[in-house]
Order: sequence, then C-alpha cells, then structure tokens
Amino acid sequence: MSFLQHLQCSLNGDVYPADQVHALSPAGRPLLCRYDLKRLRQQVDRDVFATRDGGFWCYEELLPCTDYSSVPRLGEIKTPLISLRDRRARIVVKDEGRLPTGSFKARGLALAVARARELGLHQLAMPSNGNAGAALAAYASRCDMRSLVVCPADNTPQMNIDEMRMQGAELELLDGMIDDCGKRVRELITGTDWFDVSTLKEPYRLEGKKTMGLELAEQYGWKLPSVIVYPTGGGTGLIGMWKGFKELVELGWLQQSELPRMVAVQADGCAPIVRAFAEGADEARRWDNAHTLAAGIRVPAAVGDRLMLQTLRESNGTAIAVSDAHIVSAWKQLASSEGLLLCPEGAATYAACQQLLDTGWISKDDEVVLFNCATGLKYPLPVT
Amino acid sequence: MSFLQHLQCSLNGDVYPADQVHALSPAGRPLLCRYDLKRLRQQVDRDVFATRDGGFWCYEELLPCTDYSSVPRLGEIKTPLISLRDRRARIVVKDEGRLPTGSFKARGLALAVARARELGLHQLAMPSNGNAGAALAAYASRCDMRSLVVCPADNTPQMNIDEMRMQGAELELLDGMIDDCGKRVRELITGTDWFDVSTLKEPYRLEGKKTMGLELAEQYGWKLPSVIVYPTGGGTGLIGMWKGFKELVELGWLQQSELPRMVAVQADGCAPIVRAFAEGADEARRWDNAHTLAAGIRVPAAVGDRLMLQTLRESNGTAIAVSDAHIVSAWKQLASSEGLLLCPEGAATYAACQQLLDTGWISKDDEVVLFNCATGLKYPLPVT
Repeated sequence: MSFLQHLQCSLNGDVYPADQVHALSPAGRPLLCRYDLKRLRQQVDRDVFATRDGGFWCYEELLPCTDYSSVPRLGEIKTPLISLRDRRARIVVKDEGRLPTGSFKARGLALAVARARELGLHQLAMPSNGNAGAALAAYASRCDMRSLVVCPADNTPQMNIDEMRMQGAELELLDGMIDDCGKRVRELITGTDWFDVSTLKEPYRLEGKKTMGLELAEQYGWKLPSVIVYPTGGGTGLIGMWKGFKELVELGWLQQSELPRMVAVQADGCAPIVRAFAEGADEARRWDNAHTLAAGIRVPAAVGDRLMLQTLRESNGTAIAVSDAHIVSAWKQLASSEGLLLCPEGAATYAACQQLLDTGWISKDDEVVLFNCATGLKYPLPVT
Repeated sequence: MSFLQHLQCSLNGDVYPADQVHALSPAGRPLLCRYDLKRLRQQVDRDVFATRDGGFWCYEELLPCTDYSSVPRLGEIKTPLISLRDRRARIVVKDEGRLPTGSFKARGLALAVARARELGLHQLAMPSNGNAGAALAAYASRCDMRSLVVCPADNTPQMNIDEMRMQGAELELLDGMIDDCGKRVRELITGTDWFDVSTLKEPYRLEGKKTMGLELAEQYGWKLPSVIVYPTGGGTGLIGMWKGFKELVELGWLQQSELPRMVAVQADGCAPIVRAFAEGADEARRWDNAHTLAAGIRVPAAVGDRLMLQTLRESNGTAIAVSDAHIVSAWKQLASSEGLLLCPEGAATYAACQQLLDTGWISKDDEVVLFNCATGLKYPLPVT
C-alpha cells in the first residue's frame, strides 16, 4: 500500500528500485524517494492527517514504509508552535525538543530505522555530534537492532554521550570533526553486516525530516509562513522540508507562489554553506578549523551541500552566520524574557532573525518560524 | 464566563469567594476549587476538547481562569501514551517530560501563575526539589512576574538549578529538606508582597495537575485504564487526578464504577504515605532522615497527606515503596530495551509496577498507566 515508486539520484536523475538496500547513488550523491503523487492525490484527502494520532507517523502515505502497524513508536507528537513576545515580526518557535529523545533527529532516525528493518538490516552505524546518535540508539533498541555511533570527543555534549549509552548504543569518541567520524565509521564497518545511516547517505532519514515541512503546512492550514529559519549542519531538514513542500505543491495542497523563503543559519566559526551561497557556488568547500559551541552545526563539509544551496536559491532565501557570543545572548534572552529554554542551535536561529530584522531582510509583515531543534535541557547552560 | 463558583476547605467544607487571594483555609488545610457543574453540563459538550489546540489549556471550562486569551502559553501539548513491550500487562507510559520545561510541573504552575496574575499578584515564591521551580520560573518570566525558589542544596539536580537561573528565578540553596525550604520561604516573604505558591498552599496548582486526569479520560475515550501508578512526593497529581475524575463522574462523562485504582509510589528511604497507608492512618507522620536519588519524591512531610490517603482508599488503590537500586535497574531497563529515557521518579513507577505484577496486585488483564513526570534528560544518568 506504499505510494513509494522508486529512488532517484539527486545529481543525474537515474532511478533505482526502492525495495533494495541503497546507500549513495553510483554518482556518489544522495538518493531521493519518489512517490506516485498522481495516485496519491486521487486516493488521499489532506484533512485525514489531522484525525490521526502518532505525530509525524500520521503522514504515512507520503512516507516510504510499507507497514505502519509495526513501525517503532516512542510517543511521536506534532511539535508545538510558540509565539514570541518580540513584536518586530510575527515570530514563532517550532519546538522540536518535544519529540522522543528530545530532538528533531527523532524524525529522520525513526524513518531510517523503520525502513532498515523492513529491508532486513539489523545493525546501524553512523557519525553524530550527539542528538542523531541518541535518536538512533533509542529507535534501534526499540526494534531490537544494534547501533554504533562515532562522535567527536571534544564537543559532543555529555548528556548525548550518556543517553546513547543508556539506550544501548556502542559508542566511540574520536579526536576530530563529524566528517572524520564518518570516515572512522566507514573504516569500522567495511566488510561487515553494519549499515551506514549517515545523513543523506541512505534515502530515508530525509523523508523523516520532510515531515517538519508537512507538519508546518498542516499546522498553518495548508498555507505557510513567509520565512523559515533553520540551523544548518548536514542540512537534511532544510532539504527535506523543501522536498516536502514541492510534493505538496505537486499534490495541489499548497500554492507554489506561497512557498516560504528558507534561511540557513550557521556559526561564524563553521559556515561553509554561508560562504558558498555568498560566492554563488554550486558546492561548498570544507571549512578549516571549524569551531562553535553549537555542536550540532559544527559540520565542516556536508554531502547535501548542492541540495542545500539549490533550496536556498529556489526559495529566494539566504544563508547567514552568527557568532557564538550572539548565540549565547539570544539563548539567555529567550530564557529570561520568553520562558523558553532552547538548544544553542535553536538560539542561533533567533540571533539570525535579529540580524535579518536589523537589515530589513525580515520585515514586520513577515511570519517567521524559527526551528528549535532540541530541548535546551541537554546542554551545559550559560548561566553566568 | 468561568464556571468556578467558590473555594472550599478540604477539611470542614467551609466556602470562600474565589475572586480573592487565598492561601490555606483558616483550618490550615488545602482549599479546593468548586465549579458549577450543573450549568457546565448543560452548556459544554465533552467532545469540544479534542477540537482545541493548546494542550491542557483546552479544558478551560473546568479550570479557574477567567480569560484564556491572555493565559501564558509555552507550547502546552497533550502528552503521549507510549506502550511498553513488557507483556505482563498492558502497560503504557504517559510521558509528561514533553511539556514546557520538561516536566508535569508545568501544568500546576501554568495555572498558579495565570490565576495569580488575574488576582493582581506579581511576585511568586516557593520551595522546590527542582522541576516545580523551573516551571514557576518559565511561566513567571513569560508574564513579567518575579519568582523566588528555595531548593535543597544536596540533591537538587544541577540542570534544575541552571534552568531556574536561566529563566530568571531568584534562587537560594539550603542545607535541608523540601519542608525546611518551605519554612525558609515563609521567613523570607513574611511581611512582603511575595506570595507563596507552595504545593496545595494555594488552590490553583491542583487544578493544573487535575488536567492529567482529564487528559487521560479524553485519550482513553472517556473510559479509564484500570490502574494508575504515580510517583508521590507532595501528591498534588494524585489528588488532582482524583478530583478531576470525580468532577467527570458528576458531569456524567465518566462512570463511577470504572474509576481506576490509584497507586502511590515512594522511595523506601522516604515513604511517609506508604507507612501511613499501611497503618490505616488518616494523616502521615514526618519521615526522618529521608534519602533517595529520586529528588522529586524526597518529601518527608506533605500538607496533602489526608487527601492522598483518602484518594488511595476511595479508589481501592495502594501505596508502595521501592529501593533506589530497583529504581536504577528499572531506569536502565526501560532505556536499553524500550528506548525510553525516563526520570528517576518515572523509573520508580515501573519498579513498583514490576513488584505489583509479582504479587498479583496487577494482573495481565489490567491496563496500567505509569506516569513519567519529567524528561530523563535533566538528570545525571546511571550509565555505568
């Protein structure tokens, strides 16, 4: 009963069967899930989603699994929209910290794990700056699967390390960046039965992240806010939301002319996408000596660079870097004046929003959604 | 448009006007909100609640505020029910860690703060083992009100201390138990404009906690599970849920004969309610030398003792103590085999459930709800 038709190479459009295990395409680029949207449009009413429980699992016709009665469920919910009292625009925080394991990574990993099980895999490995590994560990354990995570030793939050271990992951800490950890994963698993579920290196995490876009569309009554501000490391969320919006347009459920401007936020100590966007490049060069307190966006090189840059340009969006000092001040301000304890990456979106308000790129007529990707309760807080 | 009629002393039934500020009754006991349920029944359809957003705020006709357009909103949601794979009974975790500030304390404090503002108060103080203080800080800051919290220095989790400070609370750490902290609060605020929002010492936190019961009733289709297992410190949740169930019975929305058995869970190092229940007493003596790693249930003496004991007896429930070792093993087991990272108090409910399954008090035909009162991400985890 799945509407999934095939997988398609994001670089050259070649198609591959969806009922087999795939990693990157032969061209070395992400594979994208393609659905029979024509049939879907005939058979599904968009109003059905609001009548279902189960958070992002409610969008099952737009997801790749074949049996939703057996997918792992850990209390998925639709994440709330919280209005800020900052009145320079209509600014709303979408609080992804309410998902299982306390972060948006639950969306992608729930799908990756569920689909891996359907395809007969039992052992899943990946690099992580923390939250993705925690989500993998939880969903894998729920499915009696093994998980293996390699994390940077220097800035993975201690809570992430502890929750991964509690939830049954095998963990290695490495002196290096997330892409170094990715290389270590490949070293460890080559020639074994372990499967690599790194960001965009298999096709299904992206489909989970896509649900952020589907959910926003539903929550806004099948219109969308004018600006989406998203903290960008690997970029799966940015790419996934945009993929979702385009599917909804093709289904006739959204108007093309009403799609939002997408904003990628990075830290000024690690801003490869911001640099590539400013240079008009199609791909992003690796960022040397990457550093930021926001561990989740310390990603010097990402396999989704082309897709991110395409998304920003197609949407008339932008990419912006913020300093750690500005992240910390935004973090404190939201906590003390709004009662919202975001993660540092979420605070970065507010810092970026403030800069874009100052320059006029965001105006007071805009309706802005900031993505808080994880609960602030996972992080050492800048109390002093 | 409120259906709130008056406040009533829980000891002697005397009534007091609801539009004035009240603490304990003149008899020194908690005051309870009483509603015009006859009029409410005529004017309100229970199916309306499922059509509203805003989590527990959706039950507005059964809550004490007068203007719901201005109550503080931080992304309240209906908390998910997560089935365990443990098949000895139908066991479900209600995950309160998904609420604003990551704990069930959001329910009570949202109501206390909202109602305090309606009654003209601006400065709210209380003792807390951590989560209540964090919820007070967030909702008070959201309302531009001041908050003051006194916590035990020895076992308040560091994250609670940090989040209270980030969210703008004034904080004092004291060498003592939660009731000692309560005395210190009274010392600090006597003769000032600060108002004491300690558990059950004002009438509105209880109404917030009541929504756990209303929400369960709605989620279970206006029937209820047969057993509710609840970690019990101050006991507001236990008392509040029972109060809610009785109101729903009076409204004709629930059957009296189908009310659940209520189980109070305490740690064996601090079990005053378990002892009083076993002794058949109406009140509980203070527990000397209280100790447990589960900070939230280290409450040696509670002003709601009579109401808790009444609830347990009226519901044919029970009270049970579990060891810290058993809490830790349940905590690890749920994380590694179910993918659920509970708080230690939530883990205590699973430990209790296991004991009650072993003795047969819970049988395989029972439908059991365990309350996980906070996200596990706030706590030092027992990784080794």
